Amino acid sequence: MRLLFLGDVVGKAGRTAVTDKLPGLIAELKLDCVVINGENAAHGFGITEAIYEELLDAGADCVTLGNHSWDQREALVFIDRAPRLVRPVNYPSGTPGRGAALIEAKNGAQVLVVNVMGRVFMDAMDDPFAAVEREVERAPLGRVADAIVVDIHAEATSEKQVMGHVLDGRVSLVVGTHTHVPTADHRVLSGGTAFQTDVGMCGDYDGVIGMDRAEPLRRMREKTPGGKFEPAGGPATLSGIIVDIGANGLATAVTPLRVGGVLAPT
Amino acid sequence: MRLLFLGDVVGKAGRTAVTDKLPGLIAELKLDCVVINGENAAHGFGITEAIYEELLDAGADCVTLGNHSWDQREALVFIDRAPRLVRPVNYPSGTPGRGAALIEAKNGAQVLVVNVMGRVFMDAMDDPFAAVEREVERAPLGRVADAIVVDIHAEATSEKQVMGHVLDGRVSLVVGTHTHVPTADHRVLSGGTAFQTDVGMCGDYDGVIGMDRAEPLRRMREKTPGGKFEPAGGPATLSGIIVDIGANGLATAVTPLRVGGVLAPT
Amino acid sequence: MRLLFLGDVVGKAGRTAVTDKLPGLIAELKLDCVVINGENAAHGFGITEAIYEELLDAGADCVTLGNHSWDQREALVFIDRAPRLVRPVNYPSGTPGRGAALIEAKNGAQVLVVNVMGRVFMDAMDDPFAAVEREVERAPLGRVADAIVVDIHAEATSEKQVMGHVLDGRVSLVVGTHTHVPTADHRVLSGGTAFQTDVGMCGDYDGVIGMDRAEPLRRMREKTPGGKFEPAGGPATLSGIIVDIGANGLATAVTPLRVGGVLAPT
Amino acid sequence: MRLLFLGDVVGKAGRTAVTDKLPGLIAELKLDCVVINGENAAHGFGITEAIYEELLDAGADCVTLGNHSWDQREALVFIDRAPRLVRPVNYPSGTPGRGAALIEAKNGAQVLVVNVMGRVFMDAMDDPFAAVEREVERAPLGRVADAIVVDIHAEATSEKQVMGHVLDGRVSLVVGTHTHVPTADHRVLSGGTAFQTDVGMCGDYDGVIGMDRAEPLRRMREKTPGGKFEPAGGPATLSGIIVDIGANGLATAVTPLRVGGVLAPT
Ligand SMILES: [Fe+2]
Ligand SMILES: [Fe+2]
Ligand SMILES: [Fe+2]
Ligand SMILES: [Fe+2]
Ligand SMILES: [Fe+2]
Ligand SMILES: [Fe+2]
Ligand SMILES: [Fe+2]
Ligand SMILES: [Fe+2]
Repeated sequence: MRLLFLGDVVGKAGRTAVTDKLPGLIAELKLDCVVINGENAAHGFGITEAIYEELLDAGADCVTLGNHSWDQREALVFIDRAPRLVRPVNYPSGTPGRGAALIEAKNGAQVLVVNVMGRVFMDAMDDPFAAVEREVERAPLGRVADAIVVDIHAEATSEKQVMGHVLDGRVSLVVGTHTHVPTADHRVLSGGTAFQTDVGMCGDYDGVIGMDRAEPLRRMREKTPGGKFEPAGGPATLSGIIVDIGANGLATAVTPLRVGGVLAPT
Repeated sequence: MRLLFLGDVVGKAGRTAVTDKLPGLIAELKLDCVVINGENAAHGFGITEAIYEELLDAGADCVTLGNHSWDQREALVFIDRAPRLVRPVNYPSGTPGRGAALIEAKNGAQVLVVNVMGRVFMDAMDDPFAAVEREVERAPLGRVADAIVVDIHAEATSEKQVMGHVLDGRVSLVVGTHTHVPTADHRVLSGGTAFQTDVGMCGDYDGVIGMDRAEPLRRMREKTPGGKFEPAGGPATLSGIIVDIGANGLATAVTPLRVGGVLAPT
Repeated sequence: MRLLFLGDVVGKAGRTAVTDKLPGLIAELKLDCVVINGENAAHGFGITEAIYEELLDAGADCVTLGNHSWDQREALVFIDRAPRLVRPVNYPSGTPGRGAALIEAKNGAQVLVVNVMGRVFMDAMDDPFAAVEREVERAPLGRVADAIVVDIHAEATSEKQVMGHVLDGRVSLVVGTHTHVPTADHRVLSGGTAFQTDVGMCGDYDGVIGMDRAEPLRRMREKTPGGKFEPAGGPATLSGIIVDIGANGLATAVTPLRVGGVLAPT
Repeated sequence: MRLLFLGDVVGKAGRTAVTDKLPGLIAELKLDCVVINGENAAHGFGITEAIYEELLDAGADCVTLGNHSWDQREALVFIDRAPRLVRPVNYPSGTPGRGAALIEAKNGAQVLVVNVMGRVFMDAMDDPFAAVEREVERAPLGRVADAIVVDIHAEATSEKQVMGHVLDGRVSLVVGTHTHVPTADHRVLSGGTAFQTDVGMCGDYDGVIGMDRAEPLRRMREKTPGGKFEPAGGPATLSGIIVDIGANGLATAVTPLRVGGVLAPT
């Protein structure tokens, strides 16, 4: 089967890129499963129920989140009736929603999607490694799950790489999100797990991590509050990773996808 | 003129890749100037005088540093007799060495190399933006300097992107180092400055940020001290960015370079 | 002369304690100078012009700030017409207001008040040590200034203690603010500078750092957004330090002051 | 019963204060239980088996640790044969030793001692609140435990205060350690739990958090490596908190203890 993971969708520019291009890509690339990180889909901050459904309508089989999960407070409520919306698994027990979901893909395959937050330079969360282990043990690759995708939403390259190596051979894909810049280290690890330190964002790369650059440029130098952070409105690059997955659930090939906007296309 | 910037050289594997491949690349690509970040060249931590000279012998015109500048204490001393070694410019006044150097390139061009450290998720340093401004004003592009290279050694993608946009049109290249993973967002900004959020490392990408992965994998999960961090010893990828620079000092083209090791070649 | 420094005034409870008690204390203790940290005076976040004047009316000769300086945006404007309002000196050049002020005290003495922000676990600022040195050199103790007060607004005890020792013998008082809890290490250092790692806040100590405790208790465990942070409304403790200063500008005695609320009185 | 908690013992100066003064204090104050934080007892960094036994011999009934638990690697081994040595409870599962111990005090009472690490500005650990809850539920106050002591080893005053309020009425004492400076906010909370944001250290307060001040003063300003951090060798202040505990396990009175060294005595 063939799976596409798209990085953090940022605001209207990012959503437009998804709705415009994803349906065609699904047909063209014969995609069996699409997972999208949607933590910045609502004007750069969080996600609403309408946007969650917009992403599903465009072809997403599952939507993941991150440190911006609850920026739109309604997410704390509608996540419980949104079975394909996955928030970081290492939030405290009692947090609304789920940290992992076994979803049925377009081809009928059972795909386990786990979202987890790193802790280096991030908020204090429970152990991401122990949390993911528990989910993977519950739906082992090749027995319960036909494919397993782990979205590690983290800042430090080291923590994401450790997650990749720890899970190598037991999941189909470990992919980083959160930095909003794609890395060029996509590959299949020796155990058969596809890996990319960060998949990048679906947003306008001519801003600063997808936001209009005026305010970040001012604030980082002047250290005073001022205007709001607004998503950059230029054409977005759809940024993702395509993984070919064998019958055993492991990756056979990995291809970066970058379409539109200012980045060099793949 | 054509310039190559190579990211953080990590340990013996990284140095071997440089000494083996750089001389050939200089000839083949007709490189006029080579700048290398050497902060991890000495067994992963800092740089020695012998290694500094090894990098110059291999073809480097200038070597930059970062948060690991002084891991080998001798660097605090020999840097004052090493005119092509540049440490972050925003260290406190009185720090040994220099934060910027106007060097003569292979083609006789005057190239200003500035090294600066970011502050987001990094150690407390003086304002990186003000510090770089001062250096660029001292040797303006097209008047004093034929090319200007700014190595922003930083963790956060946002801080590096702000540096790129702030300097766009006034320097030849703003390139990030420190995360040890190349980003796929290399391009020429609208004002004519080449930019890449992080150039990646020259090291073995099958480790964790260039270090043997056994200890990082153990320590990040077990949270106890243990073995030492050792550089990974597998074949290194030479990771850099090639910039074509016009007569006005601005970039006309930018090409990522990745050769050897486990990464997809360019 | 005798000087009183009062720590971070938090919201209405803190302001009421100041306006109710400070006039009497000035008379009773024969205070020649009162400096108050007002960074949380406006409902816990920043300061307004009306509140700045309320503090002066209550007897403050000078008001200092901190990381909350600009929470009320009007402070960016009115600070330029508020000569006794001092914001951290190590903000970038160009920041509104001043980082040090030489003010005339009630007894006609010239008192230099410097406000500076630490960098450990705080926002990225310029070097606090170099910045304070410059101010102290401009108005040396015993020659230009009859007394010098340095309010180091910082998180880490180590950074505050380093500031105390670095300035020992050259200023009258180095006092920490920001943690909102008074420390019991007030004393005169060997060189004659009065020191206290943190002077504590003027606020309701039955909350969490002066804020109503419901929301901090919930948020720190549940990790979701929710209610607002509101100042705690119970009776505040006025928390400060009294310094007796000799003709040479150095401290001869130091006495903690804690009046009202739930803390043990001094 | 009457319990004494002593803060972080730093190096030889701190140990000497303990061994010289604790036996007399036990007799004089009729102490039934003594708990000491020993994370810096071995030359400022960690603890050895010999020092653990030295502290027991001086009268400690229990020794707690913190972020320096394993600075002396032997602690990873001997902790398993040291039933009265308690390391932070929120280390990952599988960590040597224990995070809580039900010990028999001098008067035969069963005292539950829990050590826990905060996460704000500290290393990434599991949820401190959930971890302490589990221990307290296992040995509830008044039923299993005659007294419960929680040592929250943390940086931020807010996190320590939240722990105090969360546990108020269910434990005898919540006391902070780690900042090495005693706070003046000791009191019995409304539910009957004794609380102090930080108990301070047993060490030489004329250094920087108990270390000789030459190196911290140099390094914090010069930002280069250099000499080692060595414990300050001047006379130490024994810094602790005395809690009187009723038959129901709750606190009836709380008194700070500061003896020797440069701090004002209690
Ligand atoms: Fe994001
Ligand atoms: Fe994020
Ligand atoms: Fe590096
Ligand atoms: Fe680095
Ligand atoms: Fe404050
Ligand atoms: Fe503050
Ligand atoms: Fe300590
Ligand atoms: Fe500690």
